[in-house]
Amino acid sequence: MSEQGASIIALLQMNPTVGDITGNAQRLERFVQTAKASGAVVSVSTELAICGYPPRDLLMQSSFVELAQQSALSLDVEIPSLIGTPTLPEHARGKPGNGVALLGNQAPVKIVARKQLLPTYDVFDEARYFDSDDRPGIARTLSGSLELGVTVCEDAWQVAGETPSEYDADPIEQLAEWGRQGVNLDATVNLSASPYHANKIQTRLHVARTAAKTLGHPFLLCNQIGGNDDLLFDGRSLAAWPSGDVVVAPAWEEGILLVDINNPQATFWVSLEETHGELVHYAPHETGEERGDVLEELADAVVLGLRDYCQKSGIERIVLGLSGGIDSAVAACVAAQAVGAKNVLGISMPSRFSSQHSIDDAKHTAEALGMEYASISIDEHHANLEQHLSEMLEHGAKVAQENIQARLRGILVMAHANAQGRMAIATGNKSELAQGYCTLYGDMAGGYTPLGDVYKMEVYGLAEVFNRRAMAQGREPPVNDSTLTKPPSAELAPNQRDDDTLPPYETLDSILKYHIEQGLGAEAIAKHGFDPSVVVSVLQRLEANEHKRWQMAPAPRVSSRAFGQGWRHPLASKHDWRR
Amino acid sequence: MSEQGASIIALLQMNPTVGDITGNAQRLERFVQTAKASGAVVSVSTELAICGYPPRDLLMQSSFVELAQQSALSLDVEIPSLIGTPTLPEHARGKPGNGVALLGNQAPVKIVARKQLLPTYDVFDEARYFDSDDRPGIARTLSGSLELGVTVCEDAWQVAGETPSEYDADPIEQLAEWGRQGVNLDATVNLSASPYHANKIQTRLHVARTAAKTLGHPFLLCNQIGGNDDLLFDGRSLAAWPSGDVVVAPAWEEGILLVDINNPQATFWVSLEETHGELVHYAPHETGEERGDVLEELADAVVLGLRDYCQKSGIERIVLGLSGGIDSAVAACVAAQAVGAKNVLGISMPSRFSSQHSIDDAKHTAEALGMEYASISIDEHHANLEQHLSEMLEHGAKVAQENIQARLRGILVMAHANAQGRMAIATGNKSELAQGYCTLYGDMAGGYTPLGDVYKMEVYGLAEVFNRRAMAQGREPPVNDSTLTKPPSAELAPNQRDDDTLPPYETLDSILKYHIEQGLGAEAIAKHGFDPSVVVSVLQRLEANEHKRWQMAPAPRVSSRAFGQGWRHPLASKHDWRR
Repeated sequence: MSEQGASIIALLQMNPTVGDITGNAQRLERFVQTAKASGAVVSVSTELAICGYPPRDLLMQSSFVELAQQSALSLDVEIPSLIGTPTLPEHARGKPGNGVALLGNQAPVKIVARKQLLPTYDVFDEARYFDSDDRPGIARTLSGSLELGVTVCEDAWQVAGETPSEYDADPIEQLAEWGRQGVNLDATVNLSASPYHANKIQTRLHVARTAAKTLGHPFLLCNQIGGNDDLLFDGRSLAAWPSGDVVVAPAWEEGILLVDINNPQATFWVSLEETHGELVHYAPHETGEERGDVLEELADAVVLGLRDYCQKSGIERIVLGLSGGIDSAVAACVAAQAVGAKNVLGISMPSRFSSQHSIDDAKHTAEALGMEYASISIDEHHANLEQHLSEMLEHGAKVAQENIQARLRGILVMAHANAQGRMAIATGNKSELAQGYCTLYGDMAGGYTPLGDVYKMEVYGLAEVFNRRAMAQGREPPVNDSTLTKPPSAELAPNQRDDDTLPPYETLDSILKYHIEQGLGAEAIAKHGFDPSVVVSVLQRLEANEHKRWQMAPAPRVSSRAFGQGWRHPLASKHDWRR
Repeated sequence: MSEQGASIIALLQMNPTVGDITGNAQRLERFVQTAKASGAVVSVSTELAICGYPPRDLLMQSSFVELAQQSALSLDVEIPSLIGTPTLPEHARGKPGNGVALLGNQAPVKIVARKQLLPTYDVFDEARYFDSDDRPGIARTLSGSLELGVTVCEDAWQVAGETPSEYDADPIEQLAEWGRQGVNLDATVNLSASPYHANKIQTRLHVARTAAKTLGHPFLLCNQIGGNDDLLFDGRSLAAWPSGDVVVAPAWEEGILLVDINNPQATFWVSLEETHGELVHYAPHETGEERGDVLEELADAVVLGLRDYCQKSGIERIVLGLSGGIDSAVAACVAAQAVGAKNVLGISMPSRFSSQHSIDDAKHTAEALGMEYASISIDEHHANLEQHLSEMLEHGAKVAQENIQARLRGILVMAHANAQGRMAIATGNKSELAQGYCTLYGDMAGGYTPLGDVYKMEVYGLAEVFNRRAMAQGREPPVNDSTLTKPPSAELAPNQRDDDTLPPYETLDSILKYHIEQGLGAEAIAKHGFDPSVVVSVLQRLEANEHKRWQMAPAPRVSSRAFGQGWRHPLASKHDWRR
């Protein structure tokens, strides 16, 4: 058991970059230094901190695993530290482990744990990469006398019933059983890379409290923050006690959670960013519903996703098409906050179907944000192409005619991207992408789709958030009333309105959420009060447009279930097994 | 043990469509009828025949699994039949099984086996979808007295050491052990969906012979044929005897392999297609290297992939850009064979950088194939856009200038696709896609990329194959000498040649193959006699262009290792851990 004063554990809430082993190693060393200087006697990293999560198929290259493990084991640290790293296979025809190295202790460095439960669903595919261990780890005699149980992310979720299917083992139960048999642990730590989605904190509180109660000692979870490709991690590392008390670190920022395992009140946050969040103490009865503004959080999430994608890829400047509509206005707000307004170029590209208010609204957004702005008419190019193809188009090829405009805009946006070293972003939202109400190689062109997992009505909500933020800084709201209140239109044909084709977005979003997030079929959705024929047409469009999503740029995952991110199926969508 | 004359087993080499449960069920019933009429006493389907392989995330919808299992169990068959189907989870929080239903026997229908070894690497991710069983299946007293061991695909591969990592169990060894303990089996069957790649027959012969020898009785493998999304299956169902004799069914066609398990010489093929392949008997010493022409087979593979993608998606007509270069010429040959030349439109879209021979060569290919042809100059549109963007482009934005042309062509191809209900195909090959020597939303535009997993030098080989095929039918060779012999050029700038940017394709292809197919790093590749700086630049371009491949249309998998098919990573490519 621990001595008085020797019980402060540092959770290193870090933002690693996938594949940047050298950079992550240096960052880890700095974090551990700060932890030591702040009085910690032990430090704990996030899952696979040395290589970043998710490393995906990099793990299939043995030289990558070798370099990662070697780098983790040779970190220069002055306090005992538990560092997440892939580990070399245990035998010749084995897979790597998702492991935890112990270094900085008196004993020689070693791997003290390998993840037991390998999530292989949704965005996870760990059974592809790792062999599992059959027991949890223990880190002994740290700083003289501290004894810790060591688990990795999913290992702690089975006990709370928060996994979609059951595993054969339960690492938390195993540790609890060892405790009953006389193994005295001071706390159990959990190295995590638990992705964000709205309200996930409620699930994590349940997991942490269940673990702490089952174990009969504090449970400390260190979670990754930052965006890596399409996955966002919110941080919110936490410490839970058997009493049900939980202290949660801020979201969306790097820092160190200093936990005195003997005293929930003596928990501190050392922020390593300019903006400083605050700790949240949850009393035993609080479920997490009480706190936070979902839209504010969503705004932070999509900004972080784009910011990290750019920073980690070496992209400094962004270009996007500004139509005067709500999606591109909000995408511009996201871009301006992610890389700085001066690094964002918005291009208005009117055709003869564009209304004057759209041109004005686009300009307003650009000026209010302080970003670069250009207006380039596509009218002449559009007319030339139409004339050139007139014979083919005169037979009422409506979609072909509309797409020509969207694709001309794609050319112009990409020309600016290529000529000026900018990344183009696609401005589509989840609702319209789900319906295929978008043009492949047109408005879908871009390296990243910041709103691609955000429903249309949430885009309106984000507009209000960015307007409030602007006003709080004494600036003009970037999304004006005209943009907020006019009926959504693609403006690719005279007097076109989105609701000529789609149900009103309130209805569409609800139907999509029931289907995508809750997995309901047409019949079950209609029972919630929707016209069955509308539901069927929404689901048919969803299936039929799988093909477009196969070719979609990465979109940050912010919902409990996204589409178009890895396990897609254009062909099957043609065969309606629901008949 | 079986009686004389009651030992003919039919392997149903079928082409199912993923998701089309109703259609697959009807097809299975017809196959079983034909098998019975041909004298079979038992029939065996491919893996998951009822829903097609790979069903991917459709398996995560419980109503899909339910409908599939129900359809399999209620098939109308008149001889005992072993049918591959997903099976409902064994318990409330379990996953489905990859199972085998036995029906048409005296006893009530039931599930007799569930796959034990779940491949979760490369194109497979079965641990994501299935729970595994802990023992192989046995189908008893079929047609009175036949007793069969029942395994599913990967189950038979462990014993031959042909899996990338080791499983805990070995189903073939388990069956052999049961045999030693007195369980008398007449044969073991294996329901497979084993994808094609060049020379894979050698591996399958090794697997089948090892299984038959280990078991001490015949081993019968029934393999899927056809293309489903990006995966191709070559069929080649087989029967192997402990002696080492193997009889292999034809590739690329549907049919029934009738196996008399007591007599390797009495094996028959009932073709269900117009073209009739022949059985191949392999004597015990033959490894498979001796047979077949790799390029002829590759041509069949890419044609089948495109044909099935179109047929199964309800696509009848194709459009593609014809540059006069080798790639689009060969893509046109593939398209013409896949959907019929009269359903293919090739468009030549010269700019001021296009040579007259390119225009002539494009026209030649179209005419020789008998496909539709159009020539649409992009010169005026190109000039207009350049003038419009002149200020930006005058600072030497070479890539931006080149891409404008490729993207204008993309607009024209897509306009024809949208207006005429055609699918556009992208004409790029694996070598240039690997190097990013292609334009996103330009020549990469299309719904399918038939040559996307074919190296450049293989594209030349395919040209010879299609020319030979044309000549054999008394037609003019579609790929003329000019196309075959001129230096490859993108013709996006004056006097441009591919080898201004890339190494010669012979060199490039070799380097890429060492890296992609064999997993070698720069140092190891250079040891094969390449300039180290060339190798490094090739690998750097490969990493840097991961982003484009994220947005690539499906390409049929024909090599032992493809890229860009599911487990991709644009972000990590920016951080060179190989430093």
